[in-house]
Amino acid sequence: MLQSYLKDTWVSPAASGPATDVHDAVTGEVVCRVAAQAPDLAGAFDHARDVGGPALRALTFHQRADLLDALAAAVRERREELYALSARAGATLLDARYDVDGGIRVLRDYAARARAELPDDGYLVEGPAERLARGEDFVGLHLCTPSPGLMLQVNAFNFPVWAPLEKLAQALLAGLPGIVKPATPTAYVTEHLVRIATDAAVLPPGTLQLAVGSIRPALDLLGEQDVLSFTGSAATAALLRAHPRVVARSVRFNAEADSVNAIVLGPDVRPGSDLFAGFVREVTTEMTVKAGQKCTAIRRILVPREVEPAALAAISAALSAVTIGNPASPEVRMGALVSLAQRDEVRRAARTIAAAGRFVHGDPGKVTLVDADAERGAFLDTILIAADPDAGAPHEVEPFGPVATVLAYRDTAHATDLLARGRGSLAATLVSDDIPWTLAVLRQAAPWHGRLHVLDTADLGQTTGHGSPLAALKHGGPGRAGGGSELAGVRGVVDLMQRTAVQASPRLAATLRASEQARS
Amino acid sequence: MLQSYLKDTWVSPAASGPATDVHDAVTGEVVCRVAAQAPDLAGAFDHARDVGGPALRALTFHQRADLLDALAAAVRERREELYALSARAGATLLDARYDVDGGIRVLRDYAARARAELPDDGYLVEGPAERLARGEDFVGLHLCTPSPGLMLQVNAFNFPVWAPLEKLAQALLAGLPGIVKPATPTAYVTEHLVRIATDAAVLPPGTLQLAVGSIRPALDLLGEQDVLSFTGSAATAALLRAHPRVVARSVRFNAEADSVNAIVLGPDVRPGSDLFAGFVREVTTEMTVKAGQKCTAIRRILVPREVEPAALAAISAALSAVTIGNPASPEVRMGALVSLAQRDEVRRAARTIAAAGRFVHGDPGKVTLVDADAERGAFLDTILIAADPDAGAPHEVEPFGPVATVLAYRDTAHATDLLARGRGSLAATLVSDDIPWTLAVLRQAAPWHGRLHVLDTADLGQTTGHGSPLAALKHGGPGRAGGGSELAGVRGVVDLMQRTAVQASPRLAATLRASEQARS
Repeated sequence: MLQSYLKDTWVSPAASGPATDVHDAVTGEVVCRVAAQAPDLAGAFDHARDVGGPALRALTFHQRADLLDALAAAVRERREELYALSARAGATLLDARYDVDGGIRVLRDYAARARAELPDDGYLVEGPAERLARGEDFVGLHLCTPSPGLMLQVNAFNFPVWAPLEKLAQALLAGLPGIVKPATPTAYVTEHLVRIATDAAVLPPGTLQLAVGSIRPALDLLGEQDVLSFTGSAATAALLRAHPRVVARSVRFNAEADSVNAIVLGPDVRPGSDLFAGFVREVTTEMTVKAGQKCTAIRRILVPREVEPAALAAISAALSAVTIGNPASPEVRMGALVSLAQRDEVRRAARTIAAAGRFVHGDPGKVTLVDADAERGAFLDTILIAADPDAGAPHEVEPFGPVATVLAYRDTAHATDLLARGRGSLAATLVSDDIPWTLAVLRQAAPWHGRLHVLDTADLGQTTGHGSPLAALKHGGPGRAGGGSELAGVRGVVDLMQRTAVQASPRLAATLRASEQARS
Repeated sequence: MLQSYLKDTWVSPAASGPATDVHDAVTGEVVCRVAAQAPDLAGAFDHARDVGGPALRALTFHQRADLLDALAAAVRERREELYALSARAGATLLDARYDVDGGIRVLRDYAARARAELPDDGYLVEGPAERLARGEDFVGLHLCTPSPGLMLQVNAFNFPVWAPLEKLAQALLAGLPGIVKPATPTAYVTEHLVRIATDAAVLPPGTLQLAVGSIRPALDLLGEQDVLSFTGSAATAALLRAHPRVVARSVRFNAEADSVNAIVLGPDVRPGSDLFAGFVREVTTEMTVKAGQKCTAIRRILVPREVEPAALAAISAALSAVTIGNPASPEVRMGALVSLAQRDEVRRAARTIAAAGRFVHGDPGKVTLVDADAERGAFLDTILIAADPDAGAPHEVEPFGPVATVLAYRDTAHATDLLARGRGSLAATLVSDDIPWTLAVLRQAAPWHGRLHVLDTADLGQTTGHGSPLAALKHGGPGRAGGGSELAGVRGVVDLMQRTAVQASPRLAATLRASEQARS
């Protein structure tokens, strides 16, 4: 029975309450049980507000950065343990590194940014002071202060390490203690992460708590100074956003929801070219890393009509080389989905899309495996579909697994129109060396996307890829993608604080700025 | 029957439908009728998206700034007409100027800011480009583009000119056409404003529409690229925020709700001093401008316990000098509330608060008037209450009229605690020459406030006052105040656009920046 970490103590849920079995994604064995209800959430909220918050707010941004570095070091020290647990959730070593090493990296990146871009003080003055009257005796500036609240993280199952660390990095810098609610299928990985942090005792009391179980009762504890940070499905995002307490208290709500992300092959890219090969590589990587269980993964592949046969052939060939099976086997490139339930949902989604076209590679009902059992493990073949670009399903249905659909576009206007039919996406990749074409598509596509990744011959060798969110850049997209914002460098930290306009005499404004600068 | 301006045409509602009489606040005469239902909203939404949006997006920020200046000139030309109509809503000439001239000023201010701080292009590149890989061939920056949507304004009754112009200034600059839904009690003032704009034909077709009537059907027309900008009560804000369509489409929602704003007299300020006189002036102004019908108006007056008697006496004396009556009379300093219904609500609220204390000045049931009838007009005396600072009502109940409550605090910690009991406010004023005290209160109070106005002997002669929102500064507060943000200089314009992270080769990034700079 998985424990929660509340009020600086590991606590077990009531043994008698309802609970869910969590199964190994590869073998089907029971890994742990997750109780439906977390113990004493009200006490945990008070503890975060009364103990964790004041401890953080007493520190400067630079001192909070030290906490991130200490946490990163503690996780790095024991990362092998997290890799091993991740394999039980279906992740290959590469997948686990993406999650675990990515989490360590985001902590360090934010620590470095805080030292470089924020003062060695507990609050931030945004200036310069602007004159507000005809004379010089009345000026305005903005003051960003930590909110005396907490961040409640409601996380998805696919990044049990990166997601809590990424949110924690920003929250701790902003002076907000964190309460982490992990998704049930991978809660044991997040639990181990928190155990590593608490064993190392690198964070002040009350600044990190773990609440395993239903999040419902916690929502009624949120207040005006809290942040609810959600990653997951659009349906759950809608429930949280409209929750009476969240609405009544104007609780700051941030959502990052799955979306139907696209890649667009430019009309200038010839099959056989290096850039075309890069396009195929990008698609294959996105379909297979974490078995396609990434909210940014490419689901729609837009290609010029005349290139469709070549694209289908090249992607199919690349997918045929992907070995699937037990993620612990070194020759395996793609592991399992997180659960049998997820596998069944992806199968259904793939069949719905294929109804508007045909399966080109892979079969949702059949898969050849290395060192694993297709009945017990949540395995799925890689699946490539070719569909009518003007049908609805390819733009609306998201198979959260190794599935993508090729859609042939007629001309540039058709391509940008198809992009927008995702109704708001986290990320898209444009593949082209034609700068005017790229700029034209970029400007049309931008309002519908949180991030646009341009692949051309010049950056082909250095790109971090379509799927990697980077701390420097805004993550999160409009519309279906949830309308939120994460990461975005130091901006993301400042966005978690309260920005207050201050109108005052120059002498007071100068004192505010000086007290900040004296320490920095 | 008040008309709507939809699809570039003035249209009347169906004569047979249900409608509301709007009364003159002073005489009780019927000014106009407002139909419950606006005609053809779906057509208006399409028109904004298909005609207005593309027209705006074809312009650069500087060209859009020209539109604001042209609109400002048109309104200025005919502002006397708006003053006259405002008097029917109970506003004195000073009140009307606050609204009308304030609206002209915000248009001009934003035009000047756009020219100074935004490029002469249709989008904005936020740089510098940051290296994202070990090598130099892959960089990131952010691109801010206009959303292909619209802004639906749902406005409060108290600023029928300033509010639509303020929102329109930012929306037009951001490339969003506006649809204005005025509040029923002053819809005729906003209607006249829009008539002035359309008579002058200064805005491109489809960029400004007026929808008189219920807003309910319009909500179901909102989409992912739209902005819903609301000003009004917290209760309505909650309804809009949780509206199924708003939630399902991640419609960007901004709320500015009334809050229980405070002023705090510092322990160093002696009765009889210039600063004490300034404090009394600030309180009296806030209570009487627009008869206290301002969302930023001071409702709670926090004073040191030992100064309470002197404060009550001085404020009462100042209020006694305020002549109340027909706003058209030159000797009148305070006019009427907007309607009899509002007056009754304010009376109820004042009595609820006084139950935790006593009336010190004024009587909710009685008022002496100049050139007006207390039975027909929505008049109310200025009302000062002294109440138990630890009671609930003074911090929770907002009398939206010329009513404020003096609350005596014991020490600084008590004062900051009382400030926070407003659960999030738009604005507070701190009155003190004691810099350490001011800084201490400022840092504690900041997370609970959108704006903090510091009154000291140095800025006493030049302050624009507690109640004036300025274009340079963020307007909008956390929690009860709605958790939104308006104005905030150019930041407010950029916040209405979509910010998209772009990852690309340096050559593409340079082209993006160059195409912006070539035009600027």
